Amino acid sequence: MNLNLNPYKGMRDFYPEDQKIFNYIFDNLKEVVKSFGYKQYNAPMIESEELYLSKSSQEIVNEQTYSFIDRGNRKVVIRPEMTPSVSRMVAAKRKSLNYPLRWYSVPNLLRYERPQNGRFREHWQLNVDIFGEESVLAEIELINIIYNIFKKFKASTSDYTIRINSRILIENVLDDLGVSKENYLDVFRIIDKKNKIDSKSFKEELGKFIKNPINIEDLLQFLEINNLEQIPTKYKEGSSYQNLYQIFSYLKLPNLVFDTSIIRGFDYYTDIVFEVTDNDPANSRSIMGGGRYDHLIEQLGEDNLPIVGFGLGDSSFFNFLSGHNLIPKLENHNTLGVLLIGNVYEGSINLLNQLRDNNIDTVVNFSNNKIGQKIKWALREDLRYVIIVGENELKTNKYNLKDLLHSTQEELSIEEIIRTIKK
Amino acid sequence: MNLNLNPYKGMRDFYPEDQKIFNYIFDNLKEVVKSFGYKQYNAPMIESEELYLSKSSQEIVNEQTYSFIDRGNRKVVIRPEMTPSVSRMVAAKRKSLNYPLRWYSVPNLLRYERPQNGRFREHWQLNVDIFGEESVLAEIELINIIYNIFKKFKASTSDYTIRINSRILIENVLDDLGVSKENYLDVFRIIDKKNKIDSKSFKEELGKFIKNPINIEDLLQFLEINNLEQIPTKYKEGSSYQNLYQIFSYLKLPNLVFDTSIIRGFDYYTDIVFEVTDNDPANSRSIMGGGRYDHLIEQLGEDNLPIVGFGLGDSSFFNFLSGHNLIPKLENHNTLGVLLIGNVYEGSINLLNQLRDNNIDTVVNFSNNKIGQKIKWALREDLRYVIIVGENELKTNKYNLKDLLHSTQEELSIEEIIRTIKK
Repeated sequence: MNLNLNPYKGMRDFYPEDQKIFNYIFDNLKEVVKSFGYKQYNAPMIESEELYLSKSSQEIVNEQTYSFIDRGNRKVVIRPEMTPSVSRMVAAKRKSLNYPLRWYSVPNLLRYERPQNGRFREHWQLNVDIFGEESVLAEIELINIIYNIFKKFKASTSDYTIRINSRILIENVLDDLGVSKENYLDVFRIIDKKNKIDSKSFKEELGKFIKNPINIEDLLQFLEINNLEQIPTKYKEGSSYQNLYQIFSYLKLPNLVFDTSIIRGFDYYTDIVFEVTDNDPANSRSIMGGGRYDHLIEQLGEDNLPIVGFGLGDSSFFNFLSGHNLIPKLENHNTLGVLLIGNVYEGSINLLNQLRDNNIDTVVNFSNNKIGQKIKWALREDLRYVIIVGENELKTNKYNLKDLLHSTQEELSIEEIIRTIKK
Repeated sequence: MNLNLNPYKGMRDFYPEDQKIFNYIFDNLKEVVKSFGYKQYNAPMIESEELYLSKSSQEIVNEQTYSFIDRGNRKVVIRPEMTPSVSRMVAAKRKSLNYPLRWYSVPNLLRYERPQNGRFREHWQLNVDIFGEESVLAEIELINIIYNIFKKFKASTSDYTIRINSRILIENVLDDLGVSKENYLDVFRIIDKKNKIDSKSFKEELGKFIKNPINIEDLLQFLEINNLEQIPTKYKEGSSYQNLYQIFSYLKLPNLVFDTSIIRGFDYYTDIVFEVTDNDPANSRSIMGGGRYDHLIEQLGEDNLPIVGFGLGDSSFFNFLSGHNLIPKLENHNTLGVLLIGNVYEGSINLLNQLRDNNIDTVVNFSNNKIGQKIKWALREDLRYVIIVGENELKTNKYNLKDLLHSTQEELSIEEIIRTIKK
């Protein structure tokens, strides 16, 4: 039987050359969040369906989850995002944790989406949250982390834009335009689609909740605001404006902009929301996004807890980095190749132990291939150094250390080889 | 609505204190396999159901998979093990890969099992494979890696036992006892249950495939063999015995034993199989196991490729380490706590940048709490060093560096603080 050898639709195989880039990206991401004192956690792949109902995003829960009935007749969901899981974990120990908490995770998440560029059915996400901080300093720290992530990967502030908005500010505007409180989320979902649908459909959708056409025009005008100063004076008195103002004045980033059309897709956001976009229009999906969600712990039945968090998906961030040539050539030059000639494996065990005990990563080729084939194998493996080991070498402790990068060679003892490679 | 805040049945939440131990274990495991030149890969969480049919283990596929129909009407399975996925990946690039391949992965795997000690519905596994090596040197390398894993965690060879067997040897015995070739797998599945069922049921089960009671007794006697020398002479001529002999003579490990009852649960193994058990009977599950599976790539429709691999599950290995007191206290002493007094966050941004630019992980407490509470917070976070930062400190560049471990303090400039912590 010939099986289809492709990965399941919309998911990816990571061959070692792909995984190497993946690890480069996530190792660096982890270093940045650890430098701010964040601690890693994890949660199960599977959660009960009720954890997501009316808390996450209608679109995700109704159309995009992998959900099924398990063998014990439970309605379950493979996690499509991490926020509900981490909120459940914090709620479960609400009273005993040491606030403020700074937590991060790097889960794989599954969504049943139409596969397209930068959007897969399985993706990995860096999730970063602060729990228990009411003040806007929490938002400022997270946006500062985002800035430091891009700096870590040597991106310039002209490569990307951090867009920020306040849902409370938009709610105040909607209130003045006659939208009732119970329809705020409906209108948010429409605003969130603004750049994905044409302007006629956009107005029609808004018309379902804003009866007066003049009010629709007022809202459209408000959604064009991209500068704090343009906010009408009457909205400048609320805490939202004060918070936004503080973010801008503390961070002074040239690529931080105010953008009234930023809403984010999740229902649980309560105030400040932000997302990062690539300045190269070819990579149109947002690279990361987040915001404040102060009521999710309450919704899970525990005392209220203020939270701010963001998530960064692997594929749109990879597209950003590769589009701006920010992925370096990742070499395999620190591994020594040991190519055996003849039946010498048993005799070389001590040599191999000595190398590994001296922290030299050592890969042995003990196949039956000829030495020429073994050298070709080493070149394809991108090994820089190899030694050829036969009975004579083992007897004399003199090995020919070949530097395949510079096409040079030198006869050295094993101790000298260890010193050379460590340099 | 009050939601159940526990994780889904049989799965685990990893709070930061749990994740720290998890990372300690897997960071060290990765270091060992990297020192042998193995490269990381990954595969999707979901595979088509047909990948597992008649290749994996009847018990797992029929009773223990999370399988469901996706929104596109495909029969799919959440991966219960990694071998079929990695074999699919290698088969897909059968002709273009650079053999021998040495690959590893650390996937999360899901099985619908009855939760019990050391057995969860989601677990993480270190998977290690060599592809394209016919000779027993591949088995020798993998068992040597296993020995080095235990050495890395400072386990003694008296803490654990490596048990090894050859399925071909057992097949030869079964052949002599009148078992037909098509029943080998059935008998293997019975032998694999030997220690889980009573001896009466065991004999009854064997009786389905071995009609003569004397032959059953002969098999039982053979399954008691725990030394290569006890193998009847007529079986010493085959390659199985030669391979086993070579493994023992090359590795000379005091805790490597020959055990004819070791079979392993997967149908795809073709010859040498091995597993590691804890010498403490309280931890009765095998800690890791593996073997040679030379025909899986062929079964996927590609040219044959010899493969040897093993898997190590996180929970039984954790039980081993904690049972032998091999998990050290993992401290958080390299992170500096910065406790702010008053409204000084904006003024301290440069200070924080300077610390992080000098590779000091720095966590800021900017909450409204009193300083006493902030110190308590730092102690609970297990921070060793904290500085208290108010307007005066920022003006004078003199900070009180408290060493919470030794209850001492010293007034230092930020440059001196950086030097002190780096020591």
